[in-house]
Amino acid sequence: MITSTQNPKIKELLLLQKKASERNQRGIFVAEGTKIVKEADPNSVVTYFVSENCDDLKTFEDLAGKGVGLEIVSSSVFNSISTQKTPQGVIAVIRKKTWTIEDIISAGDPLIVLLENVQDPGNVGTIFRTAEAAGATGLLLTDGCADPYGPKTVRSTMGSLFRVPFIYGGSAADYLKRLREAGIRSYSLSLDASIPYDTADLSSPAAILVGNEGNGLLSETVSLSDHNIHIPMCGSVESLNAAIAASVVLYEASRQRR
Amino acid sequence: MITSTQNPKIKELLLLQKKASERNQRGIFVAEGTKIVKEADPNSVVTYFVSENCDDLKTFEDLAGKGVGLEIVSSSVFNSISTQKTPQGVIAVIRKKTWTIEDIISAGDPLIVLLENVQDPGNVGTIFRTAEAAGATGLLLTDGCADPYGPKTVRSTMGSLFRVPFIYGGSAADYLKRLREAGIRSYSLSLDASIPYDTADLSSPAAILVGNEGNGLLSETVSLSDHNIHIPMCGSVESLNAAIAASVVLYEASRQRR
Repeated sequence: MITSTQNPKIKELLLLQKKASERNQRGIFVAEGTKIVKEADPNSVVTYFVSENCDDLKTFEDLAGKGVGLEIVSSSVFNSISTQKTPQGVIAVIRKKTWTIEDIISAGDPLIVLLENVQDPGNVGTIFRTAEAAGATGLLLTDGCADPYGPKTVRSTMGSLFRVPFIYGGSAADYLKRLREAGIRSYSLSLDASIPYDTADLSSPAAILVGNEGNGLLSETVSLSDHNIHIPMCGSVESLNAAIAASVVLYEASRQRR
Repeated sequence: MITSTQNPKIKELLLLQKKASERNQRGIFVAEGTKIVKEADPNSVVTYFVSENCDDLKTFEDLAGKGVGLEIVSSSVFNSISTQKTPQGVIAVIRKKTWTIEDIISAGDPLIVLLENVQDPGNVGTIFRTAEAAGATGLLLTDGCADPYGPKTVRSTMGSLFRVPFIYGGSAADYLKRLREAGIRSYSLSLDASIPYDTADLSSPAAILVGNEGNGLLSETVSLSDHNIHIPMCGSVESLNAAIAASVVLYEASRQRR
């Protein structure tokens, strides 16, 4: 049992939680919490870190073995590595899964979300979750977005991170070029657009573009996309939260496709 | 200028930020940030607390007077009272506005949101913001919800708190009784419901019921409401975030009403 925060494995885990560069170099990331860790494919898990008094200790002992590590951690050490208010006693180090742009654009009946510089980890994670629920076939994230593998994003995806194909990095312009070549129409969500989102045809192969929380999409991106749409707003509201806006349009696409 | 965190006015302000009981007893609350404070009706402001190096100092000096207090605060004291990562230099103590259930049920073309035990301040605030944007005429919050006047909720509403009529307190059962008497149909959002939300008639006077993040609506509440609806979900998603679910249904109501 690990009883010291000075243990090299604990130091390595803390580094993985904090540093995107460390996660990128090593192709691994950290997920915390019973539910999300159980949703991870055991074949992709490097190590389970389980608190000595975790209710599910037996479950993770059974999942470990065959190249999957298990580290039992004292309760006090676990509290020091947890990023949650009420730790559930399990953290897993998991290998990243990688997809190609071809995986995403060649999916049947494509409904893609392209995020440009969406910086709040909670927004990015929530968009993963809603995208899966609305039937999206993939996500494309520019390198200005919050890291999908950051602890807060992972938590907010509620497991969708393991299931929705995505690519992180590059620019919206590059993604738009590939989408166009594949015959997938792009719809920029923009406050200045004249077309209400619910009058657009979102039932054909489509990509929905959502921009930064404060500034929206880059004007270059808006001009490169096939259509510009807006969400009508009453009252004195200037804009919607980015995850809310993405969800409203995704569910309109889902409605049109049902 | 206030230069000490021991100043009684500063101590009072901190108490108002922290304690709902203090806010309730005195009928006042705290809002922070240039944008939201400017949106508050100056007639409802008790005191502006402005940092000595706030860019908008002049604006708030002009708004003060005629019974509206102004306190200039040293930069270091302001940092100690700010609840934000990047303080903008202004905090206002504001009188709560009060509405009656009659104000809300007698509004023309009612579209009401009833929140039962929605506990995350960010969710409650985001629902205020989206509700205003989607044309909701009022919100009803049970006493198990996050305090709409808590600092994080106020911030998340982005000013909608000042504009959307709402009532906080009481039970969903009591609210449902009043809604029924007023001829407003209630729609419980429930994972077990058989009717997809987008096949329900949300264009007539309607109240949309959204429950707790982990547990949803109380079964008693679901059984007391006129209709039960669900949001179809693909993949392995078990539920949507409460604010996302509320927004998807609110915008469907908005779409049907346009």
